[in-house]
Amino acid sequence: MNFCSHCGSADLRHEVPPGDTYPRYVCGGCGTIHYENPKVVTGCLPVWEDRVLLCRRAIEPAYGRWNIPSGYLENGETVVDGALREVREEAAAEVKVSYLISLYNIERINQVYLQFVGELIDGSYGVGPESLETRLFTEAQIPWEEIAFTSSLFTLRAYFRNRRTNDHRLHRSSYPDVGEGLR
Amino acid sequence: MNFCSHCGSADLRHEVPPGDTYPRYVCGGCGTIHYENPKVVTGCLPVWEDRVLLCRRAIEPAYGRWNIPSGYLENGETVVDGALREVREEAAAEVKVSYLISLYNIERINQVYLQFVGELIDGSYGVGPESLETRLFTEAQIPWEEIAFTSSLFTLRAYFRNRRTNDHRLHRSSYPDVGEGLR
Repeated sequence: MNFCSHCGSADLRHEVPPGDTYPRYVCGGCGTIHYENPKVVTGCLPVWEDRVLLCRRAIEPAYGRWNIPSGYLENGETVVDGALREVREEAAAEVKVSYLISLYNIERINQVYLQFVGELIDGSYGVGPESLETRLFTEAQIPWEEIAFTSSLFTLRAYFRNRRTNDHRLHRSSYPDVGEGLR
Repeated sequence: MNFCSHCGSADLRHEVPPGDTYPRYVCGGCGTIHYENPKVVTGCLPVWEDRVLLCRRAIEPAYGRWNIPSGYLENGETVVDGALREVREEAAAEVKVSYLISLYNIERINQVYLQFVGELIDGSYGVGPESLETRLFTEAQIPWEEIAFTSSLFTLRAYFRNRRTNDHRLHRSSYPDVGEGLR
């Protein structure tokens, strides 16, 4: 941030505003306080019988690696809306959301991951514009070494654990934990 | 947004960037795409025996009304970190987080509420700088007509329902639902 987006002034100071406890970019010209906050990444793991659907990414970062359909929550969406949109964009599929399985923080880069489990409608899916390929995997078939992000590793491990214990538990953690203790 | 925060240009267009599906503010000068995303409000309902701790707000909006300690998640925090900070700021208390009880969307104003239940350490609390007063309430004592926000109404109703059924279920909904069906 080099200029005030409100008035265009270059007189931006990084300081703690009166009554606040965190430093913000404050405009010396018009007084606007520019707050910056973490972003939500929302996603859903599509499930069909004993298999889960992963998407091989056609975009950077992690081009070519497998992922749970996920992306930044957009303004105007609920977290579930966003997850359903990501499943459409990446897997050309529709799901019925079952439950929230993970809350995963990467606080160093200001991201909060919220991932659901959802049942594929009729077991059908395709390849969305953001994917090279999509495929259903049993637990034994998961390409653990080629998963795109730690958030997806965490959620996949949580899912197979929940399935073994037959519950819908929410799993919470933060980077760099990938839930290995769960296996 | 009137000016590009990167280069200071006033040539901002609201358009769908190539490869995107949503309109963004795009700078005609330097090409920077300015993404805007929802914010997370994190909080925790402090619990002590059969009572819950609410805080009477000393700040706008909803000055003078009762609320669950909550506020915007800050960069560099996990969602739990933020909830613990809010409990300190508003109730001068420490809690041991028990579980995530609510995911509540107000998509019209781009907010996602994540609220936990936590046990007050030693039952002690005070009045933080953002509160006029704090008080422990049994379910029968809750000032339902003076609760600050729908998110807190929703979480309070979810909490007392969970306590009756003795479970730790996550409740999900969106504004304007305040969980009345739960009572």
